[in-house]
Amino acid sequence: MEIKHLRSPQTEDILPDHWYNIVPDLPEPLPPMKKPNGEDVKPEELIAIFPKKLIEQEFSTERFIKIPDELLSLYLELGRPTPLFRARRLEEFLDTPARIYYKYEGVLPTGSHKINTAIAQAYFNMLEGTKRLTTETGAGQWGSALALAGALFGLKVRVYMVRASYDQKPYRRILMQIYGAEVIPSPSPYTKSGREILERDPNHPGSLGIAISEAIEDAVTNPGTKYSLGSVLNHVLLHQTIIGLEAIKQFELIGEELPDIVIGCVGGGSNFAGLAYPFYYEEIVRGKKKSVKIIAVEPKAVPSMTRGIYTYDYGDTARLTPMLKMYTVGHRYTPPPIHAGGLRYHGVAPTLALLVKNNIVKPVAYHQTEVFRAAQLFAQMEGIVPAPESAHAVKAVIDEAIRAREEREKKVIIFNLSGHGLLDLAGYQEYLENRLRDYEPEKIDLSYLNTY
Amino acid sequence: MEIKHLRSPQTEDILPDHWYNIVPDLPEPLPPMKKPNGEDVKPEELIAIFPKKLIEQEFSTERFIKIPDELLSLYLELGRPTPLFRARRLEEFLDTPARIYYKYEGVLPTGSHKINTAIAQAYFNMLEGTKRLTTETGAGQWGSALALAGALFGLKVRVYMVRASYDQKPYRRILMQIYGAEVIPSPSPYTKSGREILERDPNHPGSLGIAISEAIEDAVTNPGTKYSLGSVLNHVLLHQTIIGLEAIKQFELIGEELPDIVIGCVGGGSNFAGLAYPFYYEEIVRGKKKSVKIIAVEPKAVPSMTRGIYTYDYGDTARLTPMLKMYTVGHRYTPPPIHAGGLRYHGVAPTLALLVKNNIVKPVAYHQTEVFRAAQLFAQMEGIVPAPESAHAVKAVIDEAIRAREEREKKVIIFNLSGHGLLDLAGYQEYLENRLRDYEPEKIDLSYLNTY
Repeated sequence: MEIKHLRSPQTEDILPDHWYNIVPDLPEPLPPMKKPNGEDVKPEELIAIFPKKLIEQEFSTERFIKIPDELLSLYLELGRPTPLFRARRLEEFLDTPARIYYKYEGVLPTGSHKINTAIAQAYFNMLEGTKRLTTETGAGQWGSALALAGALFGLKVRVYMVRASYDQKPYRRILMQIYGAEVIPSPSPYTKSGREILERDPNHPGSLGIAISEAIEDAVTNPGTKYSLGSVLNHVLLHQTIIGLEAIKQFELIGEELPDIVIGCVGGGSNFAGLAYPFYYEEIVRGKKKSVKIIAVEPKAVPSMTRGIYTYDYGDTARLTPMLKMYTVGHRYTPPPIHAGGLRYHGVAPTLALLVKNNIVKPVAYHQTEVFRAAQLFAQMEGIVPAPESAHAVKAVIDEAIRAREEREKKVIIFNLSGHGLLDLAGYQEYLENRLRDYEPEKIDLSYLNTY
Repeated sequence: MEIKHLRSPQTEDILPDHWYNIVPDLPEPLPPMKKPNGEDVKPEELIAIFPKKLIEQEFSTERFIKIPDELLSLYLELGRPTPLFRARRLEEFLDTPARIYYKYEGVLPTGSHKINTAIAQAYFNMLEGTKRLTTETGAGQWGSALALAGALFGLKVRVYMVRASYDQKPYRRILMQIYGAEVIPSPSPYTKSGREILERDPNHPGSLGIAISEAIEDAVTNPGTKYSLGSVLNHVLLHQTIIGLEAIKQFELIGEELPDIVIGCVGGGSNFAGLAYPFYYEEIVRGKKKSVKIIAVEPKAVPSMTRGIYTYDYGDTARLTPMLKMYTVGHRYTPPPIHAGGLRYHGVAPTLALLVKNNIVKPVAYHQTEVFRAAQLFAQMEGIVPAPESAHAVKAVIDEAIRAREEREKKVIIFNLSGHGLLDLAGYQEYLENRLRDYEPEKIDLSYLNTY
């Protein structure tokens, strides 16, 4: 039987013993977090919301950060290393000379990559005596990952879930409740910011910005409680680099050359960075394939990188977070109701923004209808139904594979299939019934943003 | 880092190159399929509904049947070998000396083991020129697996889906449609048997029995069309033995002894047989551990093995199938609406029935509330939310692990976690909201059954 590169082995020794921190390898220094008065945020100012170890990681300039043994065991227990598949059928269908690989994070218990940082955050919190974590969730992928992490480390978890999702998408909420988390529709009567909004409008549908504000206020005002975030920040992206580090070892193991093209979708940037940053280090920083093309895919409905500006902005609508320098369409921007809930975020991670600014990462944007069409083709070829977020990467992969065919180039492509879509079938239903709507804002108001 | 048996490696060489056929190793000859007049069914009489190669497998008495290379590649592409996990956290929580392992089939694209036979059936049909497959589905796990298999081998697939499920559970239907299958609510106007029922009651909710009748009639009356079944028959169980064959190699690889207890849930018997039959061969037939205890778990609501009788019965309500000798609660029995849709079947596979009759397999039955309670504990300990069907096995595992604690025995337990429950969260919702109902029939009418 001749089986070549359909799937790399998954063995313990593929698991890296460190995460990769891109900060020391950026093409220019990372602009610091800032307070509204323009001063830099000092590490100790974050102690009310994060444990010391995570703050240390957030500000670290060390290239490699050791993964504690207990977390390594847990990564294994939960299904890491995840498989590296070759999409041979898709290649044949597209009649492309490109070799297409994907790292599939959907085998993990909650169906996406989010658990990679959720357990790390829960672990370091547990070590420092945190008893309770708060967070926000929109579509629910992050919330369910943190709910599971809380169960695994004996921490209580409260998730502020955007009320519209809470009411319309009960299944993600049930998943969080199975894991024992308390799920609160936001805006809620439990916080000052929630109560103020409910007084004005008792039926307010909520927003991710409001939910972040509530989760932070809850953490700051309740003893033993810290806050957890699922993307954007350095320490979150750091934990996700286990994806790319595994992929590099898997490429070695099957004797494949380093990729010519690396692709991921971007909401805040965590699954993208998780795959792409280790390849950035290997190929660009270490000079093994400087020609590598790194593509970040976003929805046209929330075009932070393709139509936003590079400036300091808040992470939430209520401006409770520090300001971060990033590509942003502005914290007042209301993302249209596309099905890729995880991509409905106004900014991107500061490290990613810096790579985009320096033309190292190339952003592209798609409409959701073309994205779902690509996803259905992928499902019929490879079997896996992609999450609507990951489907954005699939669309870019197909475009690159077609380009490789036209240019007759044997490109090696890898992308992050960050999750499956089995909890997102309502979006596929709209696609199949031709009811999907595409959104592209005519004008985006950026005038109120800082220009630090 | 000391990591011991959390998870076995997943590499190509774990894939077996053959399936295991239990027929020659049964404790007594397998009673043949019969026609209503009492005559044996001859292989050639099944040609209208199955391709020759599958009929050959159905009647085969060879112990090992080679898996074609193309199928082996596809098993790899779809994610086999599946992981063998150790449930260390569950062991610790239960404070048991038992070592608990599980084979996790939920990493496969449609989220369950059903794809193992779906691709084999589609492949052999494709080889013999079949253009179109029909089948029935209740909850939808089997239908979605066959839909994907059809997409992979270029066969059209029509799934007759019980109308009540079609209307109430749109997501499984959407999954089948993503893969390109045609999904028809049953009873339908496309078949004589469907039309007859619709004439009497245009709003008939349908049943699995009716859907089977429609799918068979469709196959028999349309050129180029064959019928596919997801459980019960010898060739279907045969294909599933890849699960147990992998598990045996994985046990060897991690240096674990053969299990003392093997557990699986039973609807028709395919996931159970898939795991248990290869261990039966290794431990009982080959005599490596004759003391092994093999437990088949069923719902108290559909107690074929624990309260049924061993006799010839039809596979469907409409009596279109041949008769099989099995434990059955009768083809007229209407299974109560428990959430484990895959266990709502009146009989069990003839090979399994024979093992139960000979006291080699021990059946146990549970109520769904205690099953969901066990499943939630498992999810909080191990991360994976079990499908309601597989959760029946989880409940039995917990009971056995507690018994091992009480008897201070270091038992090695393995069970089949045949699928995840991410498309079954409505059942968990009812459980969490204390709305689950348990069903236990007071009397079961068996008087009309044959007594061959």
